[in-house]
Amino acid sequence: MTDRIRDFLRVRRDLGQDEGPVMVLDLEVVRDNYTAFARALPDTRVFYAVKANPAPEVLRLLAEMGSCFDTASVAEIEMALAAGASPDRISFGNTIKKERDVVRALKLGIRLFAVDCEVEADKIARAAEAASVETAEIQVFCRILCDGAGADWPLSRKFGCVPEMAVDVLEHAHRAGLHAYGVSFHVGSQQANTEAWDGALASAATIFQECATRGIGLSMVNLGGGFPTKYLKAVPGVESYGDAIFRALTKHFGNQIPETIIEPGRGMVGNAGLIEAEVVLVSKKSQAEDEVRWVYLDIGKFGGLAETMDESIRYAIRTEHDADRMSPCVIAGPTCDSVDVLYEKQHYPLPVSLSIGDKVLIEGAGAYTTTYAAVAFNGFPPLRQIVI
Amino acid sequence: MTDRIRDFLRVRRDLGQDEGPVMVLDLEVVRDNYTAFARALPDTRVFYAVKANPAPEVLRLLAEMGSCFDTASVAEIEMALAAGASPDRISFGNTIKKERDVVRALKLGIRLFAVDCEVEADKIARAAEAASVETAEIQVFCRILCDGAGADWPLSRKFGCVPEMAVDVLEHAHRAGLHAYGVSFHVGSQQANTEAWDGALASAATIFQECATRGIGLSMVNLGGGFPTKYLKAVPGVESYGDAIFRALTKHFGNQIPETIIEPGRGMVGNAGLIEAEVVLVSKKSQAEDEVRWVYLDIGKFGGLAETMDESIRYAIRTEHDADRMSPCVIAGPTCDSVDVLYEKQHYPLPVSLSIGDKVLIEGAGAYTTTYAAVAFNGFPPLRQIVI
Repeated sequence: MTDRIRDFLRVRRDLGQDEGPVMVLDLEVVRDNYTAFARALPDTRVFYAVKANPAPEVLRLLAEMGSCFDTASVAEIEMALAAGASPDRISFGNTIKKERDVVRALKLGIRLFAVDCEVEADKIARAAEAASVETAEIQVFCRILCDGAGADWPLSRKFGCVPEMAVDVLEHAHRAGLHAYGVSFHVGSQQANTEAWDGALASAATIFQECATRGIGLSMVNLGGGFPTKYLKAVPGVESYGDAIFRALTKHFGNQIPETIIEPGRGMVGNAGLIEAEVVLVSKKSQAEDEVRWVYLDIGKFGGLAETMDESIRYAIRTEHDADRMSPCVIAGPTCDSVDVLYEKQHYPLPVSLSIGDKVLIEGAGAYTTTYAAVAFNGFPPLRQIVI
Repeated sequence: MTDRIRDFLRVRRDLGQDEGPVMVLDLEVVRDNYTAFARALPDTRVFYAVKANPAPEVLRLLAEMGSCFDTASVAEIEMALAAGASPDRISFGNTIKKERDVVRALKLGIRLFAVDCEVEADKIARAAEAASVETAEIQVFCRILCDGAGADWPLSRKFGCVPEMAVDVLEHAHRAGLHAYGVSFHVGSQQANTEAWDGALASAATIFQECATRGIGLSMVNLGGGFPTKYLKAVPGVESYGDAIFRALTKHFGNQIPETIIEPGRGMVGNAGLIEAEVVLVSKKSQAEDEVRWVYLDIGKFGGLAETMDESIRYAIRTEHDADRMSPCVIAGPTCDSVDVLYEKQHYPLPVSLSIGDKVLIEGAGAYTTTYAAVAFNGFPPLRQIVI
């Protein structure tokens, strides 16, 4: 909660414009976060993960500050370009791409692509021909699997291949005429363990060596995202991540440290955003004394808080009664869907004086909220965002 | 898959307009479903659960056929009115309502409301004063908890109170001048057990008796939804549900059978819709012989298939190669989110000849898809719907 957000919400309420949940994002926080990343990893290029929050204001600010952009679709590439980023500062980081989207990206000038299997490299080579682009101009990096231990948001095996296979994929890309550029991995989103990069960097170094024996000189390691934002629990600062990553790079690559890329998303915008929502109902399921209260908000899993799925992300929720006695609650959203419950397995303490109509402030809501919102589930509009 | 949908998709493909996933909904199937419900439960009023699919064409058809509408928000009330339903055919069935939304609903002419606690009844009484509506004109029914055993889509304790408390809630509403009208419950969505209504009807009958001893004459039981649509598994026909419900009503209410309401959503539109999607990538995570294939589609959890959450709903997926040998696959969506995986815990058999660029048909996709889609996650547009 910054002073700028506090002032904004006060004015909005005084004007009577506080109907419905809203996410307010403070650009000054984004500016500070970018600066912190650039300082903590001075030799690393920052590719902001657009999917975390593609607000034009955010993209413009980061483009001005010199950031690069990691994109998941042609639409995101177009947003980054519209914000002022040149194509050489944009990667198409999704390992799952339609061939015609690769053609579109190439025509927009994009030359940096993620792959995790041979057929995806083939797609890019064919797309190059369709787009009349020299394959040698196209840099591809191969994503490897990473176990994601220590991360709050579950990491599946969806992206990446085993390290041994990555060598074959990169050789395949090389033989197809593409520039086999390097290796990427992701240690899991909201990663609280600063040492999580170590194991994956060991694998990356082995892939570099194996490729070298096959005559392929890799030069880049994409360290992915995973940098956390503060929710309820304290998290290490960006400097700690920078230090740990530098140590691991030195340990595994010695004095031949490769080019590096990071892709912060949550760590760049999470703490810049705050959702103001409203208590719609406080009730109990029975008259029993020890019955837990249910607190229903006008925002839920389908209105922007999708990351409460399996109660993975536990947001800090502030109210005007936080000095009062607390008691455990179930928190749920406003829709008629029974799965639209935020916290039930682990009850959430809220003040006993919290009542219908009270506002609540959900902190750390700048990432993975607005674009996650359902288009119109139950007739409720998607989460609005105001960038200040 | 109806002939009308098959013809439509063929024409669309011939025109080269088959870019991106689309859900095609056949109104003739909705017409048949409405007729089947009306026949299976001839003395019951059908309130279509608008949230399942609020397409204007669907609402208009059902309004013409005489259906009533169960709504979750003021926006849904407005949609039902726009489709031609008069206010007396619309219920505000969400137990979680802002007081100002109740005022809006009352001003739009709505007089039938769900509650599950005393404070929600108080809200309605206050809203009546604000909207200058006589409280006695307003019918409220109290939702009770139901365990949902036998349902595929998990039912939480989010809605409803224990039956003993419902008596107090209804008495409270009665004392506030509202018309204490009856009881509602929901047996869980995609309920395969036709006997699931029995236990809840026993509770409802007890509430009727207890209210009668307090001088309150209830007259309505809202039997909720839960009527399934066919996914992979066969489900009983609507007639079986009608028979079982009638038997349970007779068993618990004898010759004083109350007015009844049903709220089908999935059962009304589920099998009317089919999604055509595309295979974006087929790959493996390692070169091992027994490694399972990963099949990535251009639609996933955030593009409309949210009900694959926890693999709850298992859609029937058809391809042009279904005569070929099958092998188990993981199926995932196109976004850069690691949780965007549809079926992984239980592998899904798909033909070994399925390749990149092939179309797949996802059946039973008429309910809870279009409005569940995220507004723009990863830059991907929400699921389009075409009603034919």
